[in-house]
Amino acid sequence: MPHAAQQLARRLDELGRVTDEPGRLTRTFLSPAMERANALVGKWMQEAGLTVREDDTGNLIGRLPAGPALVAGATRTRKPKTLLLGSHLDTVRNAGRFDGALGVVLPIVALAELKRRGVTLPFAVEVLGFSEEEAVRFTGAYLGSKAYTGRLRAADLLLTDSRANTLREVIEAHAGHHYTPPKAAHRRGDLLGYVEVHIEQGPVLEDRKLAVGVVSAIASQTRGRLTFRGRAGHAGTTPMNLRRDALAGAAEFILFAEKYAGGRPPLVATVGTLAVPSGAANVIPGETVLSLDVRHPDDTACRRAVDHLIAEAQDIARRRGLTLAWQQTMKHRATPCSPELTAALDRSVRAVQGKSLALVSGAGHDGVIMADLTPIAMLFVRCRDGLSHHPDEYAAPADLAVALQVMVDFLERLAADFAKERG
Amino acid sequence: MPHAAQQLARRLDELGRVTDEPGRLTRTFLSPAMERANALVGKWMQEAGLTVREDDTGNLIGRLPAGPALVAGATRTRKPKTLLLGSHLDTVRNAGRFDGALGVVLPIVALAELKRRGVTLPFAVEVLGFSEEEAVRFTGAYLGSKAYTGRLRAADLLLTDSRANTLREVIEAHAGHHYTPPKAAHRRGDLLGYVEVHIEQGPVLEDRKLAVGVVSAIASQTRGRLTFRGRAGHAGTTPMNLRRDALAGAAEFILFAEKYAGGRPPLVATVGTLAVPSGAANVIPGETVLSLDVRHPDDTACRRAVDHLIAEAQDIARRRGLTLAWQQTMKHRATPCSPELTAALDRSVRAVQGKSLALVSGAGHDGVIMADLTPIAMLFVRCRDGLSHHPDEYAAPADLAVALQVMVDFLERLAADFAKERG
Repeated sequence: MPHAAQQLARRLDELGRVTDEPGRLTRTFLSPAMERANALVGKWMQEAGLTVREDDTGNLIGRLPAGPALVAGATRTRKPKTLLLGSHLDTVRNAGRFDGALGVVLPIVALAELKRRGVTLPFAVEVLGFSEEEAVRFTGAYLGSKAYTGRLRAADLLLTDSRANTLREVIEAHAGHHYTPPKAAHRRGDLLGYVEVHIEQGPVLEDRKLAVGVVSAIASQTRGRLTFRGRAGHAGTTPMNLRRDALAGAAEFILFAEKYAGGRPPLVATVGTLAVPSGAANVIPGETVLSLDVRHPDDTACRRAVDHLIAEAQDIARRRGLTLAWQQTMKHRATPCSPELTAALDRSVRAVQGKSLALVSGAGHDGVIMADLTPIAMLFVRCRDGLSHHPDEYAAPADLAVALQVMVDFLERLAADFAKERG
Repeated sequence: MPHAAQQLARRLDELGRVTDEPGRLTRTFLSPAMERANALVGKWMQEAGLTVREDDTGNLIGRLPAGPALVAGATRTRKPKTLLLGSHLDTVRNAGRFDGALGVVLPIVALAELKRRGVTLPFAVEVLGFSEEEAVRFTGAYLGSKAYTGRLRAADLLLTDSRANTLREVIEAHAGHHYTPPKAAHRRGDLLGYVEVHIEQGPVLEDRKLAVGVVSAIASQTRGRLTFRGRAGHAGTTPMNLRRDALAGAAEFILFAEKYAGGRPPLVATVGTLAVPSGAANVIPGETVLSLDVRHPDDTACRRAVDHLIAEAQDIARRRGLTLAWQQTMKHRATPCSPELTAALDRSVRAVQGKSLALVSGAGHDGVIMADLTPIAMLFVRCRDGLSHHPDEYAAPADLAVALQVMVDFLERLAADFAKERG
């Protein structure tokens, strides 16, 4: 399969040059570059034998019907089920060329490879290129997969972009007609599941020297803002023992959170922003505001960690004569991957790579939305330095080849399982 | 002396309403409010029997010649020496009414009280209201005392204010003639010393339940900027053990500095500002920039503390896989107060208050500049919550009364010492 792997890498390069901004990769919801990307990827879909359509929200959908050979031998009592494979084709600003695109292009190349080998599948496949996942043009993320799964609400259509166009106006200008958010593209019972291939966006596979791993869950996530308040004072004239330093309190909390999460993997806790409002080099900080982001694959464990961290922050504040305020700004429940579909994917990873590794996805993906409609599984591909959302984002051709092999193996084994069940 | 103390408090109130900005107290170098302040304080000087002049840089100088009675009895082989008493009349923006003003108005009221009692002094006294100490209009501080001591340089005259007026232009517009920075107003041998009364701007006197204390030294001060650099990463996908978090490194340093200085009074170390450039709640901080301000009354101890803190920051960085940069932005040597003059002031503090307390001034004062010309001593007055540079800055009338009594006692005893020496 060296030819197919090379083609995959070349196509990601080519797609990475389709951009709204000269000199850097940016593709946002229903932009001119997104139309060109859909045209390019749609052409690859057609070459692989897929029937291509685009929905009103710019989702690109390539459908391969169930193969005739195996179906011919089976009783046609039921409509063949559909397996969904995909990811998103939009990007952040100044993006890398793998985040999203890999999960759309790889299945197309995999299906072309099966076609080349003369393998037909006893189920239909839809390859999905979602039009919006990164929340760049509109603040609500997952617009593409929400539209596809029938979860786009009337209220979402009131979102506005930076030019004050509403989401409704933008969709209707693209579709050329009045837009009513549709029902889900499929009934739950008609689907086999959704499989998404994505770069890891983290360093674990690199650390473990593995090209790919399977995802066990997309983590539960809580985000909020802590404010420590103490007493501002003159840095030269206030002895250390008479200070109520809000930044020193925050520093104690940061170290506690680091140690607490460090001792409880896969828990992660991050203080990503910190500000000292009206701070000056010669003034003891009277106030410090910091963010806290906590993630864990298990909802209960995530909630307990947040509770424990805030309780400790309160203790620190009390001991230091400070006050503490905590404001939660976001909470996402965990999305477990399907044990059955993930086991099937894991089997192929072991077959191709020798061993496998289960990873938690700390980042959100279209799978979060798709999981409401159908079982999901995700394959993570090693990326250099764990870097994403950056032009230096990179997955090695050899790793892309492994991921492609895994997808081909997964589809072949799934077909064989079907044949066995019906045999 | 209750009348004199009440007058002092009333005059500080009245002077506190002389401002360039309606609704809040702001007086900057050679501004209209500074001219009105000089006129008002000059009137009080004249009422106390002082001869008033203003130099080209707006310094207000009230001179009381040596009294005739005692001098008459002494051989007139030498010109009587001069004792300098003062502080500054400019303020920060949105200031309190004690910082600076107290040290000018209090000596005037003290001299009026001596006059009322019929006491004459065997030495001349100059009360100085410096025109610039707070570095608000021009970035160079101490312009007033520098001009008075002959330390204003031609290069200083090139400083510009926010309207691009040079210091030279502003001085010449005020003086009405070409300005050449003068020599010192006095020869060193003609002076007895300089005594400055100032609010503490810190909480030590309040903590020790004392109205006043003497200053042993104005601290050595080093200021700089530390930059920790690590590796930015996704907050959701990077396990705790694979992080190189620049903010966590900074937090460790902040706590170390707090503990280190806390165990070595009177050392103080302050991290007053901290920034996480391009920080986001879901990104592990790749860079953190923080200020460090270290002060100690002894130059060597201050330098050693800075060296030790930076070495520890380097250790923290090394242990965490970070890099550290340190840029020193300011260094002031310590200014020791005169042991003799301070002992004399301390004697009066004990006489009036029962006991005394020696304090280090962590803040800079005109005394730093005056010390190059003559021995200095400083009296600190308790201020509520250690607060200064703020409209809520407050010294209680009872504490002002104590400070005034100390000054009167100090002048009387100094006169008696003179009589004894010559008797």
